[in-house]
Amino acid sequence: MNFTERLQHIQSQQRSLLCIGLDTDEAKLPPHLRSEKNPVLEFNKRIIEATHDLACAYKPNLAFYEAMGERGIAALHETVTCIPKSVVTIGDAKRGDIGNTAERYARSLFDDFGFDAITVNPYMGFDSVEPFIINPEQGVFLLALTSNPGSKDFQRLKIGTKPLYEKVVRTAKKWNTQHNIGLVVGATHPSELKSIRIIVPDMPILIPGVGKQGGDLKSAITFGNNKQGRLAVINASRSILYASSGKDFAEAARAEALKMVEEMRQFGKW
Amino acid sequence: MNFTERLQHIQSQQRSLLCIGLDTDEAKLPPHLRSEKNPVLEFNKRIIEATHDLACAYKPNLAFYEAMGERGIAALHETVTCIPKSVVTIGDAKRGDIGNTAERYARSLFDDFGFDAITVNPYMGFDSVEPFIINPEQGVFLLALTSNPGSKDFQRLKIGTKPLYEKVVRTAKKWNTQHNIGLVVGATHPSELKSIRIIVPDMPILIPGVGKQGGDLKSAITFGNNKQGRLAVINASRSILYASSGKDFAEAARAEALKMVEEMRQFGKW
Repeated sequence: MNFTERLQHIQSQQRSLLCIGLDTDEAKLPPHLRSEKNPVLEFNKRIIEATHDLACAYKPNLAFYEAMGERGIAALHETVTCIPKSVVTIGDAKRGDIGNTAERYARSLFDDFGFDAITVNPYMGFDSVEPFIINPEQGVFLLALTSNPGSKDFQRLKIGTKPLYEKVVRTAKKWNTQHNIGLVVGATHPSELKSIRIIVPDMPILIPGVGKQGGDLKSAITFGNNKQGRLAVINASRSILYASSGKDFAEAARAEALKMVEEMRQFGKW
Repeated sequence: MNFTERLQHIQSQQRSLLCIGLDTDEAKLPPHLRSEKNPVLEFNKRIIEATHDLACAYKPNLAFYEAMGERGIAALHETVTCIPKSVVTIGDAKRGDIGNTAERYARSLFDDFGFDAITVNPYMGFDSVEPFIINPEQGVFLLALTSNPGSKDFQRLKIGTKPLYEKVVRTAKKWNTQHNIGLVVGATHPSELKSIRIIVPDMPILIPGVGKQGGDLKSAITFGNNKQGRLAVINASRSILYASSGKDFAEAARAEALKMVEEMRQFGKW
């Protein structure tokens, strides 16, 4: 089963488009966890236990773990191990380098950490993406139009009459011969998301930026999904992880995740 | 002293534009090192000892260390510690993410690993670069026109009449208020390197792609340097690291580095 089919299947099984972004920040952990040997790992485990039946994916952000040094890397390894196979793991690494280097990143992210998919920056072109898409079961989400303010600096520049991000979208579609490439499109750009879904009717779209960053959930779902009501992967991080800073953090995270999933279920075809 | 001044000063002191790329590949190490506790670290130490008076910079490529897991990360930490302060360290990480994530990468690369400078992918725009350029002593090399074949896929697309990479160059110049931003331009594009140097007379340019990738050393120096004959940072990796696979690997690396530096000294103003 290629990555896109597996993701669509998992979304149907879980009846969820929710991706929980594990941007776990030590400084924001509930105080009672600080005495744990590895508080970040303990926190992630509890979040995963409390939410795994509500999510289609977890997306650890590598920067947060790398910033903690060795302990962070160990926590990330263990975290990936704790995620059940009924859910997809996405390593949010935004890597991108020449072929012989990209091969190393692929080895690290797919073989060593064991992610099912990763995020990749397209700027360096095909040979920087190729090593990540060899195995059709492993997926890549290419940055197209990101959720941040800086997305206007280069991604929206016009190539002829069309913006650069659209060129990335059309090129990714061409590269997607193994059905394992998706795109990253911020929920902060709903009308662009709508046009992108028309160009790529059947590619996964990872959609960050709902909530704190200002993106709207309903338009992310309506415009991001394919005709079967799948393949929009709606990311939420801080709103779920830090729903409570008390001993009830995991229950509060579940309640917040459930609220989002119930809203999603109103708009999808379930 | 800002990063650009320090780099120029170091190049003058060392009488060298050579950056040694520490893309250390376990599989290519001299066989007699394999019994060492950490062969990659031992190899790097010996290379640094043998060449540090000939280089202006060392550039470890993070992918190679990440691909080795925990042992690789430990080797990278120790390697950075072994590099004398008379030489600049560049973490070749090609990171790029939204502001709150880029802050984490900055913490990991500058504070934890202790690099003087890093490489950054510009696709996500200003807020993805800003956290790396806050301290004028710490430098960033933004990818402009990379040395690989994939550089044609997006970097050369025309925005109006000018290619995207030129827009990146002009934008980087505007962002460079603290004199700590440089560019990455492959030696495989000599005429573009020449035009870029005219646009940015005083920014550092990191130039990979000499040697195995086909770039010419003379044009990299002639077109890459500023008017004082500095700020081209010419990278060589494999040709130096693997000059010999015998017990004499460090001496052979030194001989290869010396050959390049002597060639450089013919063209610079020393």
